[in-house]
Amino acid sequence: MARTNLLYAQSGGVTAVINASAAAVIAAARERDDAIGTIFAARHGILGALDEDLIDTAALGADDLQALAHMPGGAFGSCRFDLDPPDRNAAQYDRLFAVFAAHGIDQFLYNGGNGSMDTVAKVSAAARARGYPLVCVGVPKTVDNDIEGTDCSPGFGSAAKYAAVAMLEAGLDIASMACSTGRVFVLEVMGRNAGWIAAATALAARTADAPPHIILMPEVPFDEGAFLAVVDATVRRLGYCAVTVSEGIRRADGTLVMEQDHDRKGHVQLGGAGQCIARLIHARLGHKHHWAIPDYLQRAAGHLVSAVDHAQACAVGRAAVEAAIAGRDCVMPAIRRLSDDPYRWEIVFRDVAAIASLERRVPAHFIRADGLHVTDAARRYLHPLIEGEVYPAYAGGVPDYRCPRLSSVPRQLAAYVP
Amino acid sequence: MARTNLLYAQSGGVTAVINASAAAVIAAARERDDAIGTIFAARHGILGALDEDLIDTAALGADDLQALAHMPGGAFGSCRFDLDPPDRNAAQYDRLFAVFAAHGIDQFLYNGGNGSMDTVAKVSAAARARGYPLVCVGVPKTVDNDIEGTDCSPGFGSAAKYAAVAMLEAGLDIASMACSTGRVFVLEVMGRNAGWIAAATALAARTADAPPHIILMPEVPFDEGAFLAVVDATVRRLGYCAVTVSEGIRRADGTLVMEQDHDRKGHVQLGGAGQCIARLIHARLGHKHHWAIPDYLQRAAGHLVSAVDHAQACAVGRAAVEAAIAGRDCVMPAIRRLSDDPYRWEIVFRDVAAIASLERRVPAHFIRADGLHVTDAARRYLHPLIEGEVYPAYAGGVPDYRCPRLSSVPRQLAAYVP
Repeated sequence: MARTNLLYAQSGGVTAVINASAAAVIAAARERDDAIGTIFAARHGILGALDEDLIDTAALGADDLQALAHMPGGAFGSCRFDLDPPDRNAAQYDRLFAVFAAHGIDQFLYNGGNGSMDTVAKVSAAARARGYPLVCVGVPKTVDNDIEGTDCSPGFGSAAKYAAVAMLEAGLDIASMACSTGRVFVLEVMGRNAGWIAAATALAARTADAPPHIILMPEVPFDEGAFLAVVDATVRRLGYCAVTVSEGIRRADGTLVMEQDHDRKGHVQLGGAGQCIARLIHARLGHKHHWAIPDYLQRAAGHLVSAVDHAQACAVGRAAVEAAIAGRDCVMPAIRRLSDDPYRWEIVFRDVAAIASLERRVPAHFIRADGLHVTDAARRYLHPLIEGEVYPAYAGGVPDYRCPRLSSVPRQLAAYVP
Repeated sequence: MARTNLLYAQSGGVTAVINASAAAVIAAARERDDAIGTIFAARHGILGALDEDLIDTAALGADDLQALAHMPGGAFGSCRFDLDPPDRNAAQYDRLFAVFAAHGIDQFLYNGGNGSMDTVAKVSAAARARGYPLVCVGVPKTVDNDIEGTDCSPGFGSAAKYAAVAMLEAGLDIASMACSTGRVFVLEVMGRNAGWIAAATALAARTADAPPHIILMPEVPFDEGAFLAVVDATVRRLGYCAVTVSEGIRRADGTLVMEQDHDRKGHVQLGGAGQCIARLIHARLGHKHHWAIPDYLQRAAGHLVSAVDHAQACAVGRAAVEAAIAGRDCVMPAIRRLSDDPYRWEIVFRDVAAIASLERRVPAHFIRADGLHVTDAARRYLHPLIEGEVYPAYAGGVPDYRCPRLSSVPRQLAAYVP
């Protein structure tokens, strides 16, 4: 078998386990040194590929790979950058394939979400159009869980675990503080168009009255009256109310709740959805209110990784290498669920071109009839994804994340001028 | 030795380890059944004592105590309530001592911060004035680390560990996202008057260029120009900048930064310090900005407890029982540091009356000369407090916190009408 060089890169918002996929790609490719020569990584995704900013991962020892597998964030750097359509910017693709050719790269593995899968599809089509012998494989990753064709997306399970634990712990705090005056706590989680992380906070509750009492998802238009009625009833019953809100919830007219406090000139975005919801409750019902916005913390929590998520992140990385070696162009390894309990899953391959432009949202049968919580079907789906704990090593009281030293490959080409 | 009944209660904002103190109090008191009869807990602190809302902890089995020791929040309920001065509301104290007398309570242990120590001092003085044979002991607890007379406050070490880990992990995230455009991340932590938690995020960094690059504490008047200059220089050097800000930072004129966006009528508080700082950077320097507000999550993170903090929370609980049995009225067990490295500490006792009205802030020699970071002396002080990990048991992917069932004691008195 002729040896070819492989390029791996990370794209989009990073996760707690994207480096686990990276480590798995490198380990699997090393095992197949009959088929794969140099294993490159690009800095900052496709930008590094265009800029010929490449790393030779051969410098990473076994200890480095082990450390990499348990480090959150994107060790090689990520980006938010979409290639232009090939018919609009041929020069961009000329450059990309010049870089590939200069380094003998015939395999390109791109680790990301929906936008990154679109990049995979574009690069694959451009290679075929040019007759460049490239195999492009997508490696799924997103905390948003919105990639079609896979039962879940690596990265989501750990974010979901983080959010559920956050709600559980904050719920105990607010319950202990609730006495004479009603108290409300709002947790804002990521999710612009899909409420998966918000839905997962339902896993914090073991009883019907446990937090979260309300879950607001972008899939359901925000109904202020119905929402406030449930908040009020919950505070009357329990003395407090805990609410999870996705950052992207919208009203029936399609406007974002997080935009509601723009000033009259539209210049100032005053706060996110969590703050708006907390202030709304305070203004209408008078309760004391707190809100938390974990922001990056929820997708970078290497200290609270789901073991299932970690295993799946590794599995898609390994499977992507196998697909590349087998010459399966423009595919993405995906998770197929075989059973909920016991949870069993396997890797299958999806055609990237068929899923790249789609977005997987929380389905109707996962949302309670009143739109303010999830169903048991949602719990059955979500529960296995947060199962198991993978603890990092600690040093000095904090996780001992060790960023490997990355050695850049000498450039062969002139500097890129976009 | 005559047996007397003991009353334990929790007060003020709760922590990840206040229940560890509670479990230690109960365990230590049980061991001394020669001296202590019934071990009561009041619901919601002094409010439950006034309301005669008492729990007999005898119903808690060994498993319950074990679970209690690892559950965040206040299992018996907390409160924010200050007793009136005795000369202003004798009826309040009449009621309190009527409840104590009705249940044979001669020992009162109050677990809280500065406000709670003031309650201890008031109740102690009132008991002496009335000739009631009560021994009052304070049990220190606060994430704010602002209790005088103790090297650190139980609860702080775990909040500090949470904040340091949050900054470490979010820092890896933002570093991987920083490429073409500068990015800024702001972490807002608790601390209205004292910057201890903010200072502790310095422990996230192993190298000079690692996050956090700036730490804003309430002890230092906020200097917008100096701050923005360092943000700008950091983004130019690294491509990103991570900032920790205490919620209570103020300008030189004493106004809170978090109030800067009040509208002209003063009605709307638009955001906290973190949001204000992030928006300031965006407005002046144009960088992409994110901010995180862990809020309750930082003081309720039972999944990320400092082993040192947990041990100290248990130690002050046990020592408080010893003090009560020894008849040491109006004292508080405190931590005295014997050495930094190896970290060694012991329990000493402080006169509550002498420390109740004080507030311990970050000292000048812990703050870097430019006011925008901490010194090595601060790191030496802080490091031991976040050391070691205590993991809770997990079930279903989240910590298996089990709130013990609490049985209320039949009331002996008529209902309390304040």
